[in-house]
Amino acid sequence: MGRVTARRRVTRLTGGAASERPDTLAVEEPLEIRVNGAALTVTMRTPGSDVELAQGFLLTEGLIAARDDVATVRYCRGADADGANSYNVLDVTLRPDVPMPEVDITRNFYSTSSCGVCGKASLDAVRLISRHSPGDDPATVSARALRDMPAQLRSAQKVFADTGGLHGAALFSSDGAMLAVREDVGRHNAVDKVIGWALESGRIPLTGSILLVSGRASFELTQKAVMAGIPILAAVSAPSSLAVDLATESGLTLVGFLRGESMNVYSRPDRVT
Amino acid sequence: MGRVTARRRVTRLTGGAASERPDTLAVEEPLEIRVNGAALTVTMRTPGSDVELAQGFLLTEGLIAARDDVATVRYCRGADADGANSYNVLDVTLRPDVPMPEVDITRNFYSTSSCGVCGKASLDAVRLISRHSPGDDPATVSARALRDMPAQLRSAQKVFADTGGLHGAALFSSDGAMLAVREDVGRHNAVDKVIGWALESGRIPLTGSILLVSGRASFELTQKAVMAGIPILAAVSAPSSLAVDLATESGLTLVGFLRGESMNVYSRPDRVT
Repeated sequence: MGRVTARRRVTRLTGGAASERPDTLAVEEPLEIRVNGAALTVTMRTPGSDVELAQGFLLTEGLIAARDDVATVRYCRGADADGANSYNVLDVTLRPDVPMPEVDITRNFYSTSSCGVCGKASLDAVRLISRHSPGDDPATVSARALRDMPAQLRSAQKVFADTGGLHGAALFSSDGAMLAVREDVGRHNAVDKVIGWALESGRIPLTGSILLVSGRASFELTQKAVMAGIPILAAVSAPSSLAVDLATESGLTLVGFLRGESMNVYSRPDRVT
Repeated sequence: MGRVTARRRVTRLTGGAASERPDTLAVEEPLEIRVNGAALTVTMRTPGSDVELAQGFLLTEGLIAARDDVATVRYCRGADADGANSYNVLDVTLRPDVPMPEVDITRNFYSTSSCGVCGKASLDAVRLISRHSPGDDPATVSARALRDMPAQLRSAQKVFADTGGLHGAALFSSDGAMLAVREDVGRHNAVDKVIGWALESGRIPLTGSILLVSGRASFELTQKAVMAGIPILAAVSAPSSLAVDLATESGLTLVGFLRGESMNVYSRPDRVT
């Protein structure tokens, strides 16, 4: 589709001078993901790798477990204002034996849970159960290989260099080889795209692999790593408290502030040699 | 509540040396927002200013228009595993004449700390209609006042200095005076908090004001500005294509890359003098 960047006119003010010029922006557009024809979610994403994104999302939400759970993925024939296919609605058809997602129940939003357990109930609403046990993964990675990963990600992030507006996510093998890299205006989408790539490549669970993200490590990204069976998550910036807590509970190695010669290891430091 | 930061043990690797030390992290916890007792959404947020957050969210989602639409806001009496109130569930009671939000699957909210739009179930649910017309706002701001705003935000962002993990949002008057600043692991939450502050202060619509965000300008943040009647949105980093398109359609002045002596004005540059 080639809609990763867009050009817009901009007024550039520098000191007291103003000039008009074109500017290159990261494209953000909504993608509606349908399952068997029913709307499931909308994500604001950068077009490209949409099939990976949809499948990665379904995997990290616990709705599918393997490539075989998906029968077909196709863009719906929906027209935008100009009569062209918008390529913004994707329908995923599951194999007949895969249960349809029950959105309200899996997310627990509209259940009538009593106030007496509300603190736990709200956390339960976002906590998913992984089919995999990254805590049991014997993988290790050298500190040297980890340190080299951000530069590999940056050199592969071609669009960021143009726009300054995209998050990156990359998968590495434990010897430091980069397997896949994806970009998106949403960091969770970039992660779903590389996990969707792994799903299509028959690499789920992602045992022995490292997921690198260009920004911070939130609870959400940490949970996606656990759902995909990834044993090591590394972030260039800070993790949140809940990301560290989930990593600790799950036996995931969580690395933060991976910059230059140094890094912080928040959980399972035994995997970093 | 004082749960804005948390301490965790970390293994620090620098060059070939490893050391153990405590690290200060930004706290991320789920907040469930209920309306008249029914669960509406869960957002991953940094505790603090929760009442502002909930009211700002309801306003920028178009569910309430003014402070008077809300009768009460209170934490549910719910206990966590240790028997203490979790302070993670807020119930907002609306005045009897305010219609209840249509709680069905197509309006199912799930906002992560990176995106408040993602999770809406259909494309129709993404675009909201504002009660205000920021395009008609005659406000102007000097380039000098804009240039001074990021430094004011940074000096007010006390938690970021400790953790490197929080987004900031601030409201300014058109003469450059900072009115309010809030921080959060989710940038959309930081914006909802300052807008919730304005709601409680009787300042909606926010005519004549500037919203500054510490990161990028997405579609979602731009829409929140439009919903609150803010005429000028400034971001330290890049805007997305859809943010620029929405700003152009709405007559909002969108400033990006507001750094040092320069800035890019993507729409309505006539407001920057």
